[in-house]
Amino acid sequence: MQPADREQHRRALAQVLGESQVRWDEESLRTHQRDTWFLHVWRACHQRLADEPLCVVWPRSTGEVRSVVRYAADHRLPLVPFGGGSGVCGAIAPTASAIVLDLRRMNHLLELNETALYARVQAGKMGNELEGELNAAGYSAGHFPQSIALSTVGGWVATRAAGQYSTRYGNIEDILLALEVVLPNGSVLRTKTVPRAATGPDLRQLFLGAEGTLGVVTEVTLKIFPRPESTLLQSFSFADMATGLEAIRRILRAGWRPAVVRLYDAVETVRHFPAASAGTNCLLLVVSEGPGAYTVAEAAAVAGVCAGAGGEAHGPTPVEHWLRERNNVPSFESFIERGLVVDTIEVAATWDRIATVYHEVVAAVQAVPGALVASGHSSHSYAQGTNLYFSFAARPPAPERAEETYLECWRAAMEATLRAGGSIAHHHGIGRVRRPWLRAELGEGVEVLRAIKHALDPSGLFNPGTLLPD
Amino acid sequence: MQPADREQHRRALAQVLGESQVRWDEESLRTHQRDTWFLHVWRACHQRLADEPLCVVWPRSTGEVRSVVRYAADHRLPLVPFGGGSGVCGAIAPTASAIVLDLRRMNHLLELNETALYARVQAGKMGNELEGELNAAGYSAGHFPQSIALSTVGGWVATRAAGQYSTRYGNIEDILLALEVVLPNGSVLRTKTVPRAATGPDLRQLFLGAEGTLGVVTEVTLKIFPRPESTLLQSFSFADMATGLEAIRRILRAGWRPAVVRLYDAVETVRHFPAASAGTNCLLLVVSEGPGAYTVAEAAAVAGVCAGAGGEAHGPTPVEHWLRERNNVPSFESFIERGLVVDTIEVAATWDRIATVYHEVVAAVQAVPGALVASGHSSHSYAQGTNLYFSFAARPPAPERAEETYLECWRAAMEATLRAGGSIAHHHGIGRVRRPWLRAELGEGVEVLRAIKHALDPSGLFNPGTLLPD
Repeated sequence: MQPADREQHRRALAQVLGESQVRWDEESLRTHQRDTWFLHVWRACHQRLADEPLCVVWPRSTGEVRSVVRYAADHRLPLVPFGGGSGVCGAIAPTASAIVLDLRRMNHLLELNETALYARVQAGKMGNELEGELNAAGYSAGHFPQSIALSTVGGWVATRAAGQYSTRYGNIEDILLALEVVLPNGSVLRTKTVPRAATGPDLRQLFLGAEGTLGVVTEVTLKIFPRPESTLLQSFSFADMATGLEAIRRILRAGWRPAVVRLYDAVETVRHFPAASAGTNCLLLVVSEGPGAYTVAEAAAVAGVCAGAGGEAHGPTPVEHWLRERNNVPSFESFIERGLVVDTIEVAATWDRIATVYHEVVAAVQAVPGALVASGHSSHSYAQGTNLYFSFAARPPAPERAEETYLECWRAAMEATLRAGGSIAHHHGIGRVRRPWLRAELGEGVEVLRAIKHALDPSGLFNPGTLLPD
Repeated sequence: MQPADREQHRRALAQVLGESQVRWDEESLRTHQRDTWFLHVWRACHQRLADEPLCVVWPRSTGEVRSVVRYAADHRLPLVPFGGGSGVCGAIAPTASAIVLDLRRMNHLLELNETALYARVQAGKMGNELEGELNAAGYSAGHFPQSIALSTVGGWVATRAAGQYSTRYGNIEDILLALEVVLPNGSVLRTKTVPRAATGPDLRQLFLGAEGTLGVVTEVTLKIFPRPESTLLQSFSFADMATGLEAIRRILRAGWRPAVVRLYDAVETVRHFPAASAGTNCLLLVVSEGPGAYTVAEAAAVAGVCAGAGGEAHGPTPVEHWLRERNNVPSFESFIERGLVVDTIEVAATWDRIATVYHEVVAAVQAVPGALVASGHSSHSYAQGTNLYFSFAARPPAPERAEETYLECWRAAMEATLRAGGSIAHHHGIGRVRRPWLRAELGEGVEVLRAIKHALDPSGLFNPGTLLPD
């Protein structure tokens, strides 16, 4: 696009939305040209990021989002919805002709329905702000991604997020009651706020995980939960991951749903729980929430299962430590400064496959030249299986081979997961980093997704390059 | 279609599948020309059913389903997937050129995974047969529609079914772990058997409630549940529906999830519980299932909430009566013989609207000329709201006005539900009877559904006339 055309589009959009809602200063473009994918951060540190977008628009209403969508459609400009920019898979990488649509001025809590237990909120609301407002009224959304202070509610929907308390309160698809989306053709889809319906396929599901490729989520209605009457904390150590995973399986199989069930492998137990780790190996944290009689019964059952599976009780202290530290993570920049490539990779599998996934992924990543450490924990469990959240660090053989080493670790993890029958993503999504393996994951489903994409966005303007393989 | 063409297609399909798997005898055509929608039964009783289909095919494998789908596509013949034929909304009404695809020879339990708690089963398996085989192994699918002996597992998916124990075990969309679908273009979509994934939109959801319009469900993987350690039964009476509904709301709000929570209005309490109804008004049945310590805590909490909301305990006897009688319903024919039109209509709404929906729907149906009785119960509850399952009977002013009177009762119920902010269908689906109100329910969602339909089935061959309005 010629500089004159860039200038003309910017001024035309400023005309449509108002001067204060369209930005193309260096700072605005730089902060909207990427998400928090490791490779994006690495490239930013090394001045290797490619394009800056055409401009950033800041709509304040669904009507203004429609105006931007129509402008983009009329001029065939790519459009990239932007929430907190906290995604870690590279879903945000606008080209030079793209309009970035920052939703964060759409941040109002529109309705708090205490009888029907839901909150209706604009999609650009930051997660921790919503949670704070709900807490003040005696409620919680039950959704605690580690990014809660960095992500928006619309971003939760777009990425199919999971929160730390998911085993009791559900993932975002369980918590989402209704939504409003501006579609690529400029029309507005609002789903009805009802507890359940059988009125054709559930249309909310099209946008849960679409990563901005099928529309702009503008409003979200989430279930809310009265603050729990009781919260009980327990921890247990296990000899190895397989034994700990088996304990979790038995807890879930019996029908219990602790809010938090986290099992760290030996490496991560030492890393995150130095005080507790003397004499322990794999550490399991359990938080029970609910009515008092419920948590007492659940905590006793959990203790019984863990003892029966060879676990040793370690009391509430490790859980209290985790509750304080859970959202503190070292920045990617701190590793990049030391010449390391690092990342987290979350996958999922059924119980009969999960121990194999753990061992194979750790072994495969550790076999990558330069790999220093690969470790994992389970943090979201179901009666059918659980996730594994791996972390790795590697020192590239030479600085110029950093991207290659990083991508080799990813390839090792993805291929090992697929070989073992797991799913390549539990809750971070696809973005750009996982696109090469989406066909192996979904099979014919990729063609179904492509057909839906073409049906709703025939010009392919919505967040191109994300999710769907070329 | 000319008789010679009909004959040619029949013989060609017999060539493709084998003689024994293609039928066009009178009995086969008659038993596959309709589902159990009241108007279908009424028309059958009065020899007023319209078309009989071209033929009925009985595939035994996914490969054979593909062959039929390809034949239908090549010759542009409509194709109507058929399970148990127990649907009550008119989704099955093949035209004279349609191939009806009866799935019931695909009835094998393919895998029972006791570690990961799932059962993989061909879509034509009858519900009660699956449940019986699971019970024999110590498990349950947790899904008990009243039609369990008449419906297939594939039909459960296609119609977005709900079972009587849904409040604990979930509706079919919660129980469905994976599926296989033959798409209109003849390709096969198999979703991965994983507990949860963030790999784009959840493609299972396209087929949950699609009523055969987007593909043929050929295989279903359902979660299974170990038989509960404990089951506790309670019942309570309430002065009126609003008071009983408020008690349910409080039980769910506190975080309890009894397997069964059913509240009958005064009319239905007298009808279904003659022994218990002396001195009662609205009757609430509660079944708690799970670990022993769980059910004891839940039953005590339920009793406390009900007492606090003005309920009076009536013990387990009414629940035992319901458990025995729950799937015995008088046939439509028995009413038709008496000159009556009758039906059931299930809707849903959030807690702040549900009492209004109850009163407005009952009043609207009772105001229809000829209406004899309108009543309702709540049978599927959520923290956000509940369903209402209405029944009505009417005597048309003249026999030739039976259809008009019947449809007038439906119109009254649908319009009253929409006015009160409810959803027009909780779990029976749309079929033909609810199509006139789908646009009022979904708004722009109808256009989204239409776009998806066109993307997957551009020739419109899959179960035309169902779900989507013209």
